[in-house]
Amino acid sequence: MPNISQRGQIMPASPIRKLVPLSNEAKARGTKVYHLNIGQPDLPTPQVALDALKTIDRKVLEYSPSEGLLSLRQKLASYYKRFNIDVDIDDIIVTTGGSEAVLFAFMACLDPGDEIIVPEPAYANYMAFAISAGAKIVTVPSSIDEGFALPPVERFEALITPKTKGILICNPNNPTGYLYTQKEMNQIRDIVKKYDLFLFSDEVYREFCYTGAPYISAFHLPGIEEQVVLIDSVSKRYSECGIRIGAIITKHKELKKNVMKFCQARLSPPLLGQIVAEASIDAPAEYMLMTYNEYVERRKFLIDGLNKIPGCYSPIPMGAFYTVVSLPVDDADKFCEWCLSDFEYEGQTIFMAPASGFYTTPGVGRNEVRMAYVLNKTDLTNALKVLAEALKAYPGRTI
Amino acid sequence: MPNISQRGQIMPASPIRKLVPLSNEAKARGTKVYHLNIGQPDLPTPQVALDALKTIDRKVLEYSPSEGLLSLRQKLASYYKRFNIDVDIDDIIVTTGGSEAVLFAFMACLDPGDEIIVPEPAYANYMAFAISAGAKIVTVPSSIDEGFALPPVERFEALITPKTKGILICNPNNPTGYLYTQKEMNQIRDIVKKYDLFLFSDEVYREFCYTGAPYISAFHLPGIEEQVVLIDSVSKRYSECGIRIGAIITKHKELKKNVMKFCQARLSPPLLGQIVAEASIDAPAEYMLMTYNEYVERRKFLIDGLNKIPGCYSPIPMGAFYTVVSLPVDDADKFCEWCLSDFEYEGQTIFMAPASGFYTTPGVGRNEVRMAYVLNKTDLTNALKVLAEALKAYPGRTI
Repeated sequence: MPNISQRGQIMPASPIRKLVPLSNEAKARGTKVYHLNIGQPDLPTPQVALDALKTIDRKVLEYSPSEGLLSLRQKLASYYKRFNIDVDIDDIIVTTGGSEAVLFAFMACLDPGDEIIVPEPAYANYMAFAISAGAKIVTVPSSIDEGFALPPVERFEALITPKTKGILICNPNNPTGYLYTQKEMNQIRDIVKKYDLFLFSDEVYREFCYTGAPYISAFHLPGIEEQVVLIDSVSKRYSECGIRIGAIITKHKELKKNVMKFCQARLSPPLLGQIVAEASIDAPAEYMLMTYNEYVERRKFLIDGLNKIPGCYSPIPMGAFYTVVSLPVDDADKFCEWCLSDFEYEGQTIFMAPASGFYTTPGVGRNEVRMAYVLNKTDLTNALKVLAEALKAYPGRTI
Repeated sequence: MPNISQRGQIMPASPIRKLVPLSNEAKARGTKVYHLNIGQPDLPTPQVALDALKTIDRKVLEYSPSEGLLSLRQKLASYYKRFNIDVDIDDIIVTTGGSEAVLFAFMACLDPGDEIIVPEPAYANYMAFAISAGAKIVTVPSSIDEGFALPPVERFEALITPKTKGILICNPNNPTGYLYTQKEMNQIRDIVKKYDLFLFSDEVYREFCYTGAPYISAFHLPGIEEQVVLIDSVSKRYSECGIRIGAIITKHKELKKNVMKFCQARLSPPLLGQIVAEASIDAPAEYMLMTYNEYVERRKFLIDGLNKIPGCYSPIPMGAFYTVVSLPVDDADKFCEWCLSDFEYEGQTIFMAPASGFYTTPGVGRNEVRMAYVLNKTDLTNALKVLAEALKAYPGRTI
């Protein structure tokens, strides 16, 4: 039998999805599983988007243009203007989710052996897409004790080699919920400018900034406009992860042409998702406010609850809908697995994403998990109770 | 400004899409453009599929499982049984179109430098996906004079090196319309078995075989069941290219796990497309027959018409809905471009895909184009007339 690729062998299993089979087994036993593992909000998709689906009157569900429907790109351009992000329609290329945006950005910017510097913990799938492109992610550790603030800029500079092609940030951050300050963004700008790097900036959580501190887009930074590669997605802000619509936004002319080659090879982003996404951008202010307020409450509720459990610690996330929590356990991978395979409390258990998959530095974050506060407060209450009981019962408890 | 990747620079522009800007300019001048360039059928999507869209009653358009909805995979398994393809539900992984199926198959099977052997002319995007994976496509020329039959097996064997990991076929073939015979498929089987290779088999046009000769799936070949990587898509058979639903089917256990890592990294195939695809599989026999009969008629009509134009020659395609035509021109790239930029006949012109992009051997197929017979007969009549007039007027005519 022929061998599979080494590329696939070295690719780590997704920390968000690798325990899904255990979760399915738990469900099969009749256990209620609280999903804190994945950023799949339970909030409704905007009604205007669901209505758009029902009123599609096309007879042929045909390919869209490879760069996406013009009407969607126009809507996106006006959407970005609300955030003072000034991009032309031609700067926007629609992708199959933020996932494809990251993959194509890497494919179009990086060659095998090229390096990008990323603060860790970082969204695990960046690593997977880098492996797909043959590129190397070099991480600068940020720490839970400092609330996952941007590491000092000297640590980035120390990692720059002739192979370094870019810096990647996620802001507001998945998995930490950190929101970069103007000062931190200026530091990133300076280093990107000084070394002539790409700045890959994943800003899909921009609607979710909770502290009054401003959201600083990479496109707000003067002097590096052509170096910015913005990654976007409608998934999170309109609770429509399944439609798979994202975008790459860049003003770098050669890069646009290059990205388009990858887009043309896959022919077209999903037509139906584009129709839904376009309608979603018209979601009323009340929808966005309802969503925002709900996350504000859940965040306070979850973080307060976590910090009351003996041995648990979570910083207060400033944005997105995740937090990284340290737990009093020997190994969060084992603990997360055990919760699904061996534990239940009153017929319930919890599914968390071990943080190890968000780090590349070996051994770091071993006692941390990522939680997404995408469940309603009743479910969060139960999940917190289950977590407290699980920690009491877990044989590998450290405190 | 940072440089884009070499990978993207060496990737050829899509022969199917690269002339789209010229086509748009022609339209802007008020010229009617007949699209023979792209396999986008004008036939309606099945009503049962369009109805399924309107009856979606979900409140949250959420991620589906990374491997696709179970109900869709079940439907697909029964669909394949109709063709005597015996695969388990677990052998089927849903992808974002056949495009992603090819990309993930390459990513999961091939490492940079690995080679696969492909009869040419071949679907141009295979080359793009191979470049994405860093793999090398090595081509065995087939020729229009022999109706694009499978080249002798010795020619494949002559190209096998320690880097050869697989053979790729498309059956029925895009772009040639060729349908491999049992004897040819047996030859492929023997070589795949002898050298322990993967057999990538793109069979998305299986519904469209016109000569009474049987469709032989790679899964019909005994003894290589675990080496077959079947590529499928619902796009063509249900005229729903825009929903972006395809599949990888494999019985190779390690490969399945490996493909799943790439699937998990991109989280989920499109939810809405999966719902539509699932409903489409229930399209009534009359729909499939109507579609089939329509293509039979168009095929006869187009090929007869082409072979009546002085200097044109097309073999009679046995399947799919494409044909490769040789034209009395110096350079089909230039001719196709000229048709869009400089020519019109009674306010009309034609958009064809130059065949050069379907060959890797330099200089081969220079006077050939691929045409898709996805237009109704009135449009085909007009397109044929326009082609005849264009050939009369074209300065680079050779005969």
